[in-house]
Amino acid sequence: MPSLSSAHTPLDIDAERLWSSLMDMAKVGPSPNGGSRRLAISDEDAAGRRLLLDWVEALGCTWHRDEAGNLFILRPGQDNSLAPVAIGSHLDTQPLGGRFDGVLGVLGGLETLRTLHDHQVTTLRPLTLVVWTNEEGSRFSPAMAGSGVWSGRLAQDAFFDAKDSQGVSVSEALEATNQRGDAALGSPELDAYFELHIEQGPVLEETDEPLGIVTGVQGIRWYDLRFEGQSVHAGPTPMSYRHDPLLAATAFIQAMRDELGDDRDARLTVGDFSVIEPSRNVVPGAVKVQLDLRHVDETRLSELDAAVTRLAQSAAEREGTRVDIEPIWHSPVTPFHDDLIRTLGDAAKARGNEAPQMMSGAGHDAVNVSHVAPTAMLFVPCLDGISHNEAEYASPEHCALGTQVLCDAVVAWANR
Amino acid sequence: MPSLSSAHTPLDIDAERLWSSLMDMAKVGPSPNGGSRRLAISDEDAAGRRLLLDWVEALGCTWHRDEAGNLFILRPGQDNSLAPVAIGSHLDTQPLGGRFDGVLGVLGGLETLRTLHDHQVTTLRPLTLVVWTNEEGSRFSPAMAGSGVWSGRLAQDAFFDAKDSQGVSVSEALEATNQRGDAALGSPELDAYFELHIEQGPVLEETDEPLGIVTGVQGIRWYDLRFEGQSVHAGPTPMSYRHDPLLAATAFIQAMRDELGDDRDARLTVGDFSVIEPSRNVVPGAVKVQLDLRHVDETRLSELDAAVTRLAQSAAEREGTRVDIEPIWHSPVTPFHDDLIRTLGDAAKARGNEAPQMMSGAGHDAVNVSHVAPTAMLFVPCLDGISHNEAEYASPEHCALGTQVLCDAVVAWANR
Repeated sequence: MPSLSSAHTPLDIDAERLWSSLMDMAKVGPSPNGGSRRLAISDEDAAGRRLLLDWVEALGCTWHRDEAGNLFILRPGQDNSLAPVAIGSHLDTQPLGGRFDGVLGVLGGLETLRTLHDHQVTTLRPLTLVVWTNEEGSRFSPAMAGSGVWSGRLAQDAFFDAKDSQGVSVSEALEATNQRGDAALGSPELDAYFELHIEQGPVLEETDEPLGIVTGVQGIRWYDLRFEGQSVHAGPTPMSYRHDPLLAATAFIQAMRDELGDDRDARLTVGDFSVIEPSRNVVPGAVKVQLDLRHVDETRLSELDAAVTRLAQSAAEREGTRVDIEPIWHSPVTPFHDDLIRTLGDAAKARGNEAPQMMSGAGHDAVNVSHVAPTAMLFVPCLDGISHNEAEYASPEHCALGTQVLCDAVVAWANR
Repeated sequence: MPSLSSAHTPLDIDAERLWSSLMDMAKVGPSPNGGSRRLAISDEDAAGRRLLLDWVEALGCTWHRDEAGNLFILRPGQDNSLAPVAIGSHLDTQPLGGRFDGVLGVLGGLETLRTLHDHQVTTLRPLTLVVWTNEEGSRFSPAMAGSGVWSGRLAQDAFFDAKDSQGVSVSEALEATNQRGDAALGSPELDAYFELHIEQGPVLEETDEPLGIVTGVQGIRWYDLRFEGQSVHAGPTPMSYRHDPLLAATAFIQAMRDELGDDRDARLTVGDFSVIEPSRNVVPGAVKVQLDLRHVDETRLSELDAAVTRLAQSAAEREGTRVDIEPIWHSPVTPFHDDLIRTLGDAAKARGNEAPQMMSGAGHDAVNVSHVAPTAMLFVPCLDGISHNEAEYASPEHCALGTQVLCDAVVAWANR
């Protein structure tokens, strides 16, 4: 009979195998400059999942999909009446995405299953490796959608009816790629959820830390703003007679930046700024701005939310324009589970690392899962903090260390 | 034998006929909200010219086109060995254009020809009514292209090879619409050139003046700026680690605005601002800005030109980004001809108007023509200063007064 693992029988992962699998997965939907392009629920995304399934089937694992296409890979435990301990992340990428965002979490989970298989270890509780559908949100909005609809945080209509820029819905894409399953959303109940991810930020690298234990996720607020003025010919209208929405919008963005001051925990991003009916020699009639605000402290995030309205309206008024502000998403600050955080910290220490605690600046599937199961995350550094970019890079050593600590923590938790 | 006109035999135009022709022309290529859409060298543009030709053929006028499609309508004088006196403007419009921009100048010229015909007056010098090709520049860049290539201010390659967004060149469009003529560019030599136009600004309306004598045109400088930074995920990167080109670009625009101060003669317009590969939750990697700067004083315009480089580079540096600045066009301040300015002023006075002198903020075909023939312009107010817009409006009374003064001045000049 296979034995339980313990602190006395260390389960060492195979770092070279992990790296090789990461590089093999990157070649599915390769992007021009060495990254990956596996848009959610595309043929490339399905091919990436198929490669993973080839690997786990070789370990004797079974698998199924739920109605949202979320993929659950199962490794039995000694007591399969207990809820499984989950490891998860995603395989879909940005249009010009990297090789690690999401992929490391899934293939770190794969390496955990392979390591247990190598050592013929069966944990007390069963394990499940989850691949969530459409985490990136770049083909179908919103992001983290598969985990959202699974956890009940996202309405089913909003998930299934979302359309890409070609008018294809998620439902249609799931059918076309044969990714829709039969399992009910919300099943199975999870005992706990662990997610390993690249930091997607520069903090670990700057502080020379190879690991971070994530204690929660920043609150996020998204806005669509539309500044409306009056379109007039560029030359003959003195500045004082104009109603220029572009000057209002740019003044607003600068005012928000000033509002942040030197608050290191605040993030302000304008990912899109566009002129309606642009023409070189015409004052725009309207300008659209997409705003993304984040903070680790919910009270401060609320203050910044109030500042959006106040500063947008005052900037609009100063230019004789008006502004519509549509708050389109609010994800409050999400704390993770203390016991899982401690388990990850203990596993890191046992491997010689005093991993610092930190908040995540990015949203992750773990945020959704944390509302229905105990959850925690582990970060490894990525080069220059770059992600959502073909140049995204995490070193083999950091990928291996993160996967080792993930494996150790999952096994410890599954055997508790 | 037809008589010369003189101050003793006033030639009164027919205001109702003028208005009726303006409204008839607006119906050629009608836009959804009561304006016009006659993109340069389109079928609609050709149809507008055909309607004009029907009208002038009824007056016994002849006409021809030059190689650039510029249309010359000829009314003989008593001495046809003398160079003709020209009236001109354009019939092409913006995509959602108005009924008066350019059209008033052409149909004011038509009404002048009709009035002379009614009164059986033949001027000493012949007259020519000119319709320039592609003044607007919205389908094919640059603007004022037909008068530009005719006057030698625009290279022939730049004119004929310019392509629209569908890849159709000016040459191809001229052939397709049968607008290419045989006459050589630069012919005929003009004795003088008069252009009536709506102000396209608010100054006459604000000062309650029905007419303005244009003494020249503001200098114009156009720039393409590209701010380049580093695309990173919105959440995890503290502001101090970012290289955000959008924050640099918006700071630059606000700095330029501050640089203008309360200089009433300066104009700053950003007609387009776009993010390369926009994504809501990604710091942009690059941002493009189109800038249009104008001033009536060339020295001050040069100072502002220097400020573009200085302020763009300092804004880019502050954000850890870089900027490429491409100056793509410079039209220096253009003074018009003193004798023609005086003739227009005298004609206005004779009709009871102390028309103020003013500089034009918009570029016009007259700027190009002024380099090869004595030139002046006349402005009438337009509602709220709006143009390049379906809502563009000039009252029947102002159109009639402008046309009357144009007619009187042209006849006086042609008979001098």
